[in-house]
Amino acid sequence: MLALAAVLALSSPALAAEPVDTAAAVRDRALADPTAWTLLEDLTTDVGPRPTGSPAMVRAKDWGVQTFRDLGFTNITVEEFAKPSWTRGAESASVVAPYPFKLSILGLGGSVPTPARGIEAEVVVFRAYADLLAAPAGSLTGKIAVVTQAMTRTQDGAGYGAAGVARRSGPSEAARRGAVAYLVRSISTSDSRLPHTGAFRYADDAPKIPAAALGVPDAELLERLAARGPVKVKLSLASTTNPDNVAWNISGDILGSERPEQIIVIGGHLDSWDVGTGAIDDASGIAITTAAAKLIGDLPRHPKRTIRVVMWGSEESGGSSEAYAKARAGEIGNLVVASESDLGGDRIYALMLPQGAAAHPIRNQLSSLLAPLKILVSSEPARSGGADTSGLQAAGVPVFSLRQDASRYFDFHHSEDDTIDKVDRLSLDHNVAAWAAVIYMIADSDIDFRALKDAK
Amino acid sequence: MLALAAVLALSSPALAAEPVDTAAAVRDRALADPTAWTLLEDLTTDVGPRPTGSPAMVRAKDWGVQTFRDLGFTNITVEEFAKPSWTRGAESASVVAPYPFKLSILGLGGSVPTPARGIEAEVVVFRAYADLLAAPAGSLTGKIAVVTQAMTRTQDGAGYGAAGVARRSGPSEAARRGAVAYLVRSISTSDSRLPHTGAFRYADDAPKIPAAALGVPDAELLERLAARGPVKVKLSLASTTNPDNVAWNISGDILGSERPEQIIVIGGHLDSWDVGTGAIDDASGIAITTAAAKLIGDLPRHPKRTIRVVMWGSEESGGSSEAYAKARAGEIGNLVVASESDLGGDRIYALMLPQGAAAHPIRNQLSSLLAPLKILVSSEPARSGGADTSGLQAAGVPVFSLRQDASRYFDFHHSEDDTIDKVDRLSLDHNVAAWAAVIYMIADSDIDFRALKDAK
Repeated sequence: MLALAAVLALSSPALAAEPVDTAAAVRDRALADPTAWTLLEDLTTDVGPRPTGSPAMVRAKDWGVQTFRDLGFTNITVEEFAKPSWTRGAESASVVAPYPFKLSILGLGGSVPTPARGIEAEVVVFRAYADLLAAPAGSLTGKIAVVTQAMTRTQDGAGYGAAGVARRSGPSEAARRGAVAYLVRSISTSDSRLPHTGAFRYADDAPKIPAAALGVPDAELLERLAARGPVKVKLSLASTTNPDNVAWNISGDILGSERPEQIIVIGGHLDSWDVGTGAIDDASGIAITTAAAKLIGDLPRHPKRTIRVVMWGSEESGGSSEAYAKARAGEIGNLVVASESDLGGDRIYALMLPQGAAAHPIRNQLSSLLAPLKILVSSEPARSGGADTSGLQAAGVPVFSLRQDASRYFDFHHSEDDTIDKVDRLSLDHNVAAWAAVIYMIADSDIDFRALKDAK
Repeated sequence: MLALAAVLALSSPALAAEPVDTAAAVRDRALADPTAWTLLEDLTTDVGPRPTGSPAMVRAKDWGVQTFRDLGFTNITVEEFAKPSWTRGAESASVVAPYPFKLSILGLGGSVPTPARGIEAEVVVFRAYADLLAAPAGSLTGKIAVVTQAMTRTQDGAGYGAAGVARRSGPSEAARRGAVAYLVRSISTSDSRLPHTGAFRYADDAPKIPAAALGVPDAELLERLAARGPVKVKLSLASTTNPDNVAWNISGDILGSERPEQIIVIGGHLDSWDVGTGAIDDASGIAITTAAAKLIGDLPRHPKRTIRVVMWGSEESGGSSEAYAKARAGEIGNLVVASESDLGGDRIYALMLPQGAAAHPIRNQLSSLLAPLKILVSSEPARSGGADTSGLQAAGVPVFSLRQDASRYFDFHHSEDDTIDKVDRLSLDHNVAAWAAVIYMIADSDIDFRALKDAK
């Protein structure tokens, strides 16, 4: 990025460099630093899939604590919170008529099981979720409702939220209309047979029916078959739940040199779905933010404020955000800003600052620092800092967002294909560089983002 | 491609067009003809996966006969031949140590089953097949041998043959060195967890050990785990075989108008692997060649020679090529040329003519006809006309080859991902156009390719 001589000169403590010079040096060091990749490889190889409530999650917690120790973090904390867990059992689905065909499915997180003998019924296929909503009450009595609406590929991942309602609300909407089970086309941009799981919640006023995702080609096959005549499907799900389970938020600090009580909160989530090894979701975020903070921790002089990396313990089915905000209730005012990396390992294309900060001089400094990485600084404020910061945001903590290119993310997300080979090492390091530059600048500043927001 | 008026003018029988003009008209009609796509959709939707020996293969046979009838073919024949069948049973594999992890596997076609309790053993990972061959006798005693060599992506599919030896010969080579089971990285260019199956044969002089393919990310995980310490894997395969099964080669003719006894043999294979719906392998080839011949059959005047479409009945594990050549033994001299479409639905980039034909004037005519499709006519002769024509080729029948771009083919081939969504309709029609032009020209000529070959 910069010539090596320039990097060395800028990073020399003897020069009493300006913050922006140190941030640039850390940024460039990140591009050749092995920490993030090593963390990503270790977590996905040594721990593997780590759903909340699983034995693997206990190993993940121990890995997180050991990682913070090994990398020189201080004030390492493990905070336990109550977290009911859901565990996938044996699952299968088949077309029974017009001819036997094994479907690729994955139960949705939170689904009730089917009876042991399964549920066999005729399907009703809706090519748009809106068509299901338009179906009258009772029209699906005794049927398996199938929604096959496709997800749109977008850079910012907006397609996920738009298509995802069919997963999040579909089971109860189908049940209200009489359906005995619910199948949804995977909320995915891939054309793989590997289905995409994810969580949902039953509405209180509807029967709880079993729900699963179909592989994309399987959903399209059901469309074609249903257009030719009646189709009967058999679904079996054997999930279990444990209402008394727990999870943990783990954190480690790079202590500030002047105002250590003022804290920048960053991190990723340690839990993953049970399929795949959670490489893009979210070992990448753990690796990126931990490596960025560690690079700053290695500096001869720490920035003024503390940088805290949190490994949130239950993002996928929720809980860690609320638990973290609750545990921090007494010190919310000390949390300067919060942001999570939780969209894989592909490159960042935009920084969105907290509300009001676009007019602050730090914006131009960050523009300059991020220009070599081809990252723009948006004039729009961040609306979210990531799912696990939403509790803090609701409590008044300002948030920022380093927006990653999500064009490929939903090809692999929440599927067996979420594995390390989907992560490009250079792109991962690009993320570390951006995070390191941004958090160094904020941590070595005395900007009060709340005041900027209020001033607007 | 050409303006509509030109097409209509060229295709009018009143003009007494030259063969090349009729071929051009048929070529252009193919680009807007729905036949191939309809056949592809019907076969993959109404029949689905169709391994030899399965009930679905009986439905596929009936579909083939009905298709020939519906499209106006004559001399429809169904030739039965003996074909032992292999049927996949329940399959699973897991890492047992250092921690439990479910591996994505697919048994290789022809594998013996494991004992019902499975086989549990430490793995020995070879990153190159040559490393397995270099392992001394006895060095794998009691181990599961794992070969993780990657396949190279190439336009002509040459990577498949080169990497495939690890599947075709690996089980017996591992057994010779004492291995109790064999796992091979999928012979695939994809990074999907969905494994790639395929057939192999045991050597007569080695113990028969169970053999399966690993998903690509699973193979890479085993590499990383094995580099960190001992890894134990448990494998269970429950395949069965039926030595007394049968298969069928089905064919239909577009009768020649002047020398109907001289026959151009083209086609695809009707059987598929049991995973996926056999869309690229080889419903596409069936659809392309059938649609091309049908377009010629629709002409007011048929070309001089007969065009025969064969739906070969057992390509995947072999047998249909030999059976077909044997059944044709008495009329081999009447078979002008043979070629199979069996590399999916992506575009053709080259035509390779039979040995000796590059110096014949038909080469320039074909160059002109194929130029608008961006297909070159190679100066190299075809070395093969496809697996199902190898028996004919061995008996002296000249072969040609329309080479398809195989860059994407091995991302999906022999996996659950071989489904219709992987086929691009415009590319499929492009194939039909090329086949129609080439076979029309050969069928309306009196070229004796054997004489050209001998003259060289």
